Amino acid sequence: MIVVMEQGATAKQISDVITRIEADGYKAHLSQGKERTIIGLVGDSPTPKREQNYSVMPGVDKAVRITEPYKLANRSFQPDGTKVPLNGSMMGGNKILVIAGPCAVESREQIIETACAVKEAGATALRGGAYKPRTSPYSFQGFGEDALKWMAEAREITGLPIVTEVMDHNLVPLICEYADVLQIGARNMQNFTLLNAVGESQHTVLLKRGMSSTVQDLLMAAEYILQHGNTRVMLCERGIRTFETETRNTSDINAIPALKKLTHLPVVFDPSHATGKWEYVEPLALAGIAAGADGLIVEVHMEPDKAVSDGRQSLKPDGFKQMMERVRRVAEAVGRDA
Amino acid sequence: MIVVMEQGATAKQISDVITRIEADGYKAHLSQGKERTIIGLVGDSPTPKREQNYSVMPGVDKAVRITEPYKLANRSFQPDGTKVPLNGSMMGGNKILVIAGPCAVESREQIIETACAVKEAGATALRGGAYKPRTSPYSFQGFGEDALKWMAEAREITGLPIVTEVMDHNLVPLICEYADVLQIGARNMQNFTLLNAVGESQHTVLLKRGMSSTVQDLLMAAEYILQHGNTRVMLCERGIRTFETETRNTSDINAIPALKKLTHLPVVFDPSHATGKWEYVEPLALAGIAAGADGLIVEVHMEPDKAVSDGRQSLKPDGFKQMMERVRRVAEAVGRDA
Amino acid sequence: MIVVMEQGATAKQISDVITRIEADGYKAHLSQGKERTIIGLVGDSPTPKREQNYSVMPGVDKAVRITEPYKLANRSFQPDGTKVPLNGSMMGGNKILVIAGPCAVESREQIIETACAVKEAGATALRGGAYKPRTSPYSFQGFGEDALKWMAEAREITGLPIVTEVMDHNLVPLICEYADVLQIGARNMQNFTLLNAVGESQHTVLLKRGMSSTVQDLLMAAEYILQHGNTRVMLCERGIRTFETETRNTSDINAIPALKKLTHLPVVFDPSHATGKWEYVEPLALAGIAAGADGLIVEVHMEPDKAVSDGRQSLKPDGFKQMMERVRRVAEAVGRDA
Amino acid sequence: MIVVMEQGATAKQISDVITRIEADGYKAHLSQGKERTIIGLVGDSPTPKREQNYSVMPGVDKAVRITEPYKLANRSFQPDGTKVPLNGSMMGGNKILVIAGPCAVESREQIIETACAVKEAGATALRGGAYKPRTSPYSFQGFGEDALKWMAEAREITGLPIVTEVMDHNLVPLICEYADVLQIGARNMQNFTLLNAVGESQHTVLLKRGMSSTVQDLLMAAEYILQHGNTRVMLCERGIRTFETETRNTSDINAIPALKKLTHLPVVFDPSHATGKWEYVEPLALAGIAAGADGLIVEVHMEPDKAVSDGRQSLKPDGFKQMMERVRRVAEAVGRDA
Repeated sequence: MIVVMEQGATAKQISDVITRIEADGYKAHLSQGKERTIIGLVGDSPTPKREQNYSVMPGVDKAVRITEPYKLANRSFQPDGTKVPLNGSMMGGNKILVIAGPCAVESREQIIETACAVKEAGATALRGGAYKPRTSPYSFQGFGEDALKWMAEAREITGLPIVTEVMDHNLVPLICEYADVLQIGARNMQNFTLLNAVGESQHTVLLKRGMSSTVQDLLMAAEYILQHGNTRVMLCERGIRTFETETRNTSDINAIPALKKLTHLPVVFDPSHATGKWEYVEPLALAGIAAGADGLIVEVHMEPDKAVSDGRQSLKPDGFKQMMERVRRVAEAVGRDA
Repeated sequence: MIVVMEQGATAKQISDVITRIEADGYKAHLSQGKERTIIGLVGDSPTPKREQNYSVMPGVDKAVRITEPYKLANRSFQPDGTKVPLNGSMMGGNKILVIAGPCAVESREQIIETACAVKEAGATALRGGAYKPRTSPYSFQGFGEDALKWMAEAREITGLPIVTEVMDHNLVPLICEYADVLQIGARNMQNFTLLNAVGESQHTVLLKRGMSSTVQDLLMAAEYILQHGNTRVMLCERGIRTFETETRNTSDINAIPALKKLTHLPVVFDPSHATGKWEYVEPLALAGIAAGADGLIVEVHMEPDKAVSDGRQSLKPDGFKQMMERVRRVAEAVGRDA
Repeated sequence: MIVVMEQGATAKQISDVITRIEADGYKAHLSQGKERTIIGLVGDSPTPKREQNYSVMPGVDKAVRITEPYKLANRSFQPDGTKVPLNGSMMGGNKILVIAGPCAVESREQIIETACAVKEAGATALRGGAYKPRTSPYSFQGFGEDALKWMAEAREITGLPIVTEVMDHNLVPLICEYADVLQIGARNMQNFTLLNAVGESQHTVLLKRGMSSTVQDLLMAAEYILQHGNTRVMLCERGIRTFETETRNTSDINAIPALKKLTHLPVVFDPSHATGKWEYVEPLALAGIAAGADGLIVEVHMEPDKAVSDGRQSLKPDGFKQMMERVRRVAEAVGRDA
Repeated sequence: MIVVMEQGATAKQISDVITRIEADGYKAHLSQGKERTIIGLVGDSPTPKREQNYSVMPGVDKAVRITEPYKLANRSFQPDGTKVPLNGSMMGGNKILVIAGPCAVESREQIIETACAVKEAGATALRGGAYKPRTSPYSFQGFGEDALKWMAEAREITGLPIVTEVMDHNLVPLICEYADVLQIGARNMQNFTLLNAVGESQHTVLLKRGMSSTVQDLLMAAEYILQHGNTRVMLCERGIRTFETETRNTSDINAIPALKKLTHLPVVFDPSHATGKWEYVEPLALAGIAAGADGLIVEVHMEPDKAVSDGRQSLKPDGFKQMMERVRRVAEAVGRDA
């Protein structure tokens, strides 16, 4: 069971609930966020009667019983769905939001030019890697803080908020200074130290699914962030590992309606990593929207042939523009805006 | 290389080509279909020059060099795409065609009632199992020829052509008497004896992808059918096996644009088996169309709770009707009719 | 529940049991083999009391309650383990038996020469493909009955029984004339028509696991054969499909102790297909024995470089001889003979 | 190409090689470890002639050309195999070394009692979790530094070195104070920040394979550690994710001979995580040794029923003792000691 406190609940009201929980033989798990306080009951399942007892205590908004292992991420905890603010719109609202940009920030010019191009085509936010997780230690590892500065400059010019990956929990404060959204990459989905750090930061997070993680693993990873009272979490399906070799990964598109049913968090789809080939990005982007995704994250490069990474799966600005037009049509067909 | 003969090519012209192939040191592989004759060159890759030599021989339509292991299924063999006639429309044409019906034919009344319901909602063909492949020998194995007769009756009433599975090559002639489309199930995708039999039958075939088959394996299985000159082949993506347990299978939706690129054969998507849960069928149906599928095959049951098999993944007629309306909107959004 | 009749049970005793089962509200499932008759109760789980009622009827050996979906294959049905006779030894007995030979029979000389070589190294039986399931219709499909004749000749010379694949249920009678063991290949593990045919043949069967079949799927496939009263069934683990590309398949070695626990049928391991590279065959053969396999099936070719198929995973006779010596040492270390 | 300096190479000799490399148009990648210095050439493949040029420079031991993406981990870099010291023995030497202990350190008494039990049965080192990566934030996360202290006490009593997981690079110095071997868990195999930190620590490392990582991914992760000149790295196969549900993971036993061929680093097998069920641990331990593993890591608990984690896959001391006896016999059968 989870006890959700009212927004203006006092410290006294909170400690009264905790005292009661402990008196009832449970352990209390406190999540204090910027906006509200939630108290979880850890232990055996409470009875329905007890649920009612908590819901009438002063300062309590509601008490919700949840049987799945993911509590705060559970749809039943927030049936209406969570909306995460992004550039004046809401991820998880009716409008489809698209995050676009290069895999890696390669230069000041590159990121500004790309930002302008994706902005013109209708993107809501700019992605770009400053710190890159690379399979090989000999590959380009990113321009670090320089790249963050160049992205901030691109934001000043275009107004697009910045989405960038954080790999090291020590860098969370630095990256928060520049970025609007902290991305957790697939390889770090179960880096629990990092999940706790971005949870504590109260910054918006884009959490990518691990390449061999189940839908439930993803929800449990989100739970790590949510337990710090940080509810600005977007989940991202980016393909899983299977035996198929025609594509880099296999898009688990089933996960989109599954997540929309199981959790209240917004769901973003990444057709670039999920396919690994630019020619499949547009059809998959459309499929993702048709399946119910709230947004997309897409790799765009001015000259994919010269990209230091992921050129094979990057759209050119023209291709991105065409994709956006078709995304709008499919979005409308399923009752969404774009 | 593949030499495609003109439609009216004489036996003499064909044998001249074969003689020439053998003189050039290759083995000739003859595919004689109802509509045209194709002769494959088996052996080392011929030179471009040789290609021209064959293309100018009397009775030859064209000579096509193909480096992939799938020759007749290759897109480059038929760049415009193959259209397979179904109920006055064309699978692979602009219109999205939907095949619907129960997993198993359970009674005369059931199949007729379902046929009327799916017809009314806009289905193009009726599916129904007469011979069922079941994991357990103790499960219901289908009503056999009785079921075929009931389906034929449903066709008389509704005009919907019949799609039904064949598991035993000895039964191909019998099933051809009743069915319009022979379905090869996922478990039999590499039952080469059966593939040869349906190829020889010159009957329309719906070939489902095996649950651990690669896209290339699927194309090679199609090649077995095509080599008998039978080009009325539709491919079907129906989900693959992965570690994910939230859904019965994982829809390999990447395979849809991949197949459209690699082969000229029409591509059908089965959201029922690909998800295994009825609540995910509609979003996946829409995703399949958005990704470029030419058609759908969907399980519909009047009373899913009482179905002898696959009730968990079957839509009710109302749900199917709603799905069809939304399919039409998404089809239109991607420039297709439905 | 399953009712096992005594060996000399009369037709009257059998029909009495069936009458009683039906009177109790169950459906009776009759399996009449060469050696004994088994009657399954299909329907809701009977009570323990009822179990006792059946076990005291005349002609009844025992009544066994089984909750898993595989009944006749269940360990609890035959706790001591089934032993399948092979060349005077018993697969499933204390001795490790090794089946060896080429992927495909390529000529009379080749199969005789190979048979002599593997016999000398200690093999118990000879494998060789007469009818080959090939991914491509353009690949060599086997020499058919000629190959069977050459194998029979090799058997006359060496005394080694013949293991060969059957892909077409119409060919079961022909292949039974020549072969001692019918192999069901991975691609046909759920070809239920074929499973029924080899079950009815009462011939010894080697059933290979499908490349994406679960352990339970394999046991259900065995159930199809066993329900015909044919208990001479050996199961074979030959690798499954995963994302790993360093090897052709991934040996599911966990399946060996799992099968030994779940079923009474003997378990054979195929390190050739499970790895796809000859250099890994010996270490995996040893691992299979250490994990509890009752036997091995290994590809051996006189000149792997010239093999028409599977040369990459075939041992030369010298390598096979060395493997056999090491197999003996590991077998002894785990309390087995070889 | 990689240039390996002699042990006593001077700073001048090293800088001369770097100068030469840069003059030749490559980028030099310097790895300075406690024992030796290695300089990698990053850029296009050098010619064989150039290889010779470097090998004759003063202070150079050898120059090795390597085409695979993993350089320092490559077998050709150290053909004799690396031996990692552990408790007076060598992991990677002829003797099979076994690391054993509980999943989590639960109390001072528990770890001391378990250490004594596994020591008596022949274990070489003690495992135990102080900081636990848990799927759920609500699960027990380990006793942290207290657990490290209790393990240190157990070491004093038994002499067994300590193997424990590090999840946070900030904790590397602290854990190095207590532990003999730093374990990188499967979920952190591509946590590159952490890999760099343990590389820099020059401490012995046990690197577990990620549950969806390929063999090559594992070698590239090792490369991150090795590039800091830290060669005390042991690799650990612990099962991968597949569709099979009978076991928790699928042991990729093929990976053992594959790793022994591709890399010079010692290979440890973890049958506890690879199966997830205690009854399969012993047969898999034997299989791992038969397949060529240099050592094992096994979960042992005094009372598995009461374990806070992984009780289902933990052996009791008696079971571990029996396993050790059988490991010795199989080790001997394959020419190893134990």
